[in-house]
Amino acid sequence: MTVFTAGYFTMKEQDVIEYAKTVLHFFDSDAELTCKEIGDGNLNYVFRVVDKKSNKSLIIKQAGPVARISDEFKVSPDRNRIESEILKLQGKLAPGLVPKVYNYDSIMNCCAMEDLSDHEIMRSALIKHKKFPQFADHITTFMVNTLLLTSDVVMDHKKKKEQVKRFINPELCEITEDLVYTEPFYNCPRNDVFPTTKEFVKEHLWADKKLALETAKLKFEFMTNAQALLHGDLHTGSIFIKEDSTKVIDPEFAFYGPAGYDVGNVIANLIFALVNAKYTIEDKEIREDYMEYLENTIIDVVDLFKEKFVKAWSRHVTERVAQYEGFKEYYLDTILRDTSAVTGLELCRRIIGIAHVKDITSIADVEKRAAAEKICLSLGKTFILERESMKAGEDFITVIRKCEQKF
Amino acid sequence: MTVFTAGYFTMKEQDVIEYAKTVLHFFDSDAELTCKEIGDGNLNYVFRVVDKKSNKSLIIKQAGPVARISDEFKVSPDRNRIESEILKLQGKLAPGLVPKVYNYDSIMNCCAMEDLSDHEIMRSALIKHKKFPQFADHITTFMVNTLLLTSDVVMDHKKKKEQVKRFINPELCEITEDLVYTEPFYNCPRNDVFPTTKEFVKEHLWADKKLALETAKLKFEFMTNAQALLHGDLHTGSIFIKEDSTKVIDPEFAFYGPAGYDVGNVIANLIFALVNAKYTIEDKEIREDYMEYLENTIIDVVDLFKEKFVKAWSRHVTERVAQYEGFKEYYLDTILRDTSAVTGLELCRRIIGIAHVKDITSIADVEKRAAAEKICLSLGKTFILERESMKAGEDFITVIRKCEQKF
Repeated sequence: MTVFTAGYFTMKEQDVIEYAKTVLHFFDSDAELTCKEIGDGNLNYVFRVVDKKSNKSLIIKQAGPVARISDEFKVSPDRNRIESEILKLQGKLAPGLVPKVYNYDSIMNCCAMEDLSDHEIMRSALIKHKKFPQFADHITTFMVNTLLLTSDVVMDHKKKKEQVKRFINPELCEITEDLVYTEPFYNCPRNDVFPTTKEFVKEHLWADKKLALETAKLKFEFMTNAQALLHGDLHTGSIFIKEDSTKVIDPEFAFYGPAGYDVGNVIANLIFALVNAKYTIEDKEIREDYMEYLENTIIDVVDLFKEKFVKAWSRHVTERVAQYEGFKEYYLDTILRDTSAVTGLELCRRIIGIAHVKDITSIADVEKRAAAEKICLSLGKTFILERESMKAGEDFITVIRKCEQKF
Repeated sequence: MTVFTAGYFTMKEQDVIEYAKTVLHFFDSDAELTCKEIGDGNLNYVFRVVDKKSNKSLIIKQAGPVARISDEFKVSPDRNRIESEILKLQGKLAPGLVPKVYNYDSIMNCCAMEDLSDHEIMRSALIKHKKFPQFADHITTFMVNTLLLTSDVVMDHKKKKEQVKRFINPELCEITEDLVYTEPFYNCPRNDVFPTTKEFVKEHLWADKKLALETAKLKFEFMTNAQALLHGDLHTGSIFIKEDSTKVIDPEFAFYGPAGYDVGNVIANLIFALVNAKYTIEDKEIREDYMEYLENTIIDVVDLFKEKFVKAWSRHVTERVAQYEGFKEYYLDTILRDTSAVTGLELCRRIIGIAHVKDITSIADVEKRAAAEKICLSLGKTFILERESMKAGEDFITVIRKCEQKF
């Protein structure tokens, strides 16, 4: 019999079945368990365990000692502790919008949680051009509740500082600092640029000193601005979705950073879906309809975020000086500015850097893919450089439409 | 015999002698120890222990369970751990500019350190109108080394984050948030305004909504911007000085915050000395000479800080993007902006808030004191509102001279 209390080891499927039977008290004693590793992320092993008899199921997620994407990234299994604690906290702040956590095991560095197999990964669903009319509503509730309610505007400042301490996340932050804020903006050997796009990148991004300077400012803000407890990796691959349900998963990058980081990631990844639709849907009417749906979703994400943020502010604000005239507007403006900047950074880094998105890489035609990439890069640059002027959903769409016309 | 390992208690002078004999191995076995409590700060008990035979001496500083200034402030004795660790760290970064630490005791919450009785508290010395021609040089070395070298510009980002975690300081930060950033800017019952100044405060500070908004922005930056490991309370009462030596003491407020916080505190407290000189030195020639000395010291603090900062940047920078064209200038500009803001906050809060400075309270003549206070408040307001335009020592002096002419 395998022992799970003596020390960490990376589990195989058979170990996970035994683990579920002997450690967790989730399944019936006569359960007939099957297990499959279903992870496709960059960092962890994800096992789905099903009882064929009762049809009950759960997910066990185990952190390995190195990232799956490349053993260059050594990441502490402490990220699994952070993930479990964050999921519980987010579950309180934004009920129903994250999976339930059943158990966290600090020896095996694994977490047992709700199986969401009736949902699908949002990125894949968007590439299949499915619509989710409730998504903007759900994700803005998630973001307003997890961001504003963990900030100094609402939390007791001493408790907030203890929470900052608990979620200091050096290794995962380093990945973001390198892959999002640094490598895409110079000719770094670890970049992975599509050959047809390379000249454009050299000319319009790597040669642009003004852009480089802005990325430096943004990187230092990311490293120092402990504003809100971020998800930290809120792209459409971290969202499980079905028509009437949205579940945000994988918060292992969580830490206290600028609130706009999460909002910007959502918007950038909706833009990838939009650009995918532009180049992969042949039928004009279907294409325009789907693109309009995505544009409206982008507008709604920004504007519903603002609307709910203002309401939540009135309801939850506890900090005296935050109630001074003009402060709420100033604060929201800085979040929108950071949102725009991060939208831009994410658009650039997913094209130039090591970690691509299927929305773009699945565009089979070389010319179309290159055109799609150039749109993303031009948009990315604009959202970084003109971040001070982005104040509403419509501002984002105006930039997108202008840019699309150029290519 | 008193036991010092069973649990914390607040020591009296006789306990301290026994503590020095039985716990520390600093004095000879036949030492004839005397002890005197010499603390005049707000938070701690400070004992000086002297061996009459050898003339060796040391200081034992013990954190009590509540602040001495008022038992409203409950402060964790963990501040003593922070203070000891910070003194050791600052001693490495800025050798010779802080007292040596001999021992830290986590049960008794006390720290044994170098006796600096041959130095005097700088505030008292300035009130006596003494000059310290090396001060600007010493303090700028201290600030550049402790601030820049603990920032993300120089430190490995993961180690820096571990250091942020180690020095999260909720209770002491709360004191600053309340006493510096909040209470002085509204009619808070805990304020302590000189009657002759009260109307001025009401009209020019409490009624000014623009000023209130700026203080709110600054308070949130103070709470969230983990830029550099601050001393956190760098006024002239935290500096021991003699002609050729400057020692920075009392770093219990240390935490990662905006670098300009320390620089601004130094400048504001030099301004208090300047205003003191203006109203207490009768002889015109002596007065003008001393004021000129202080003005030059202010100019030197700002300009030497900049000069040494730029040199240290070139020598120590490790962060790739920090070397982008224009970033160093941008970064230094933000520190000067914060320096100006904090100069302003400190000038206001020492006049309006609970904790005054002797430079001003020792001005015996009521009219002169009121005039002195109005200069400080007007200056304070200007340095907050016009913080973006303060780029060099001369800019600070220009503001000071303009303001002096008004009163």
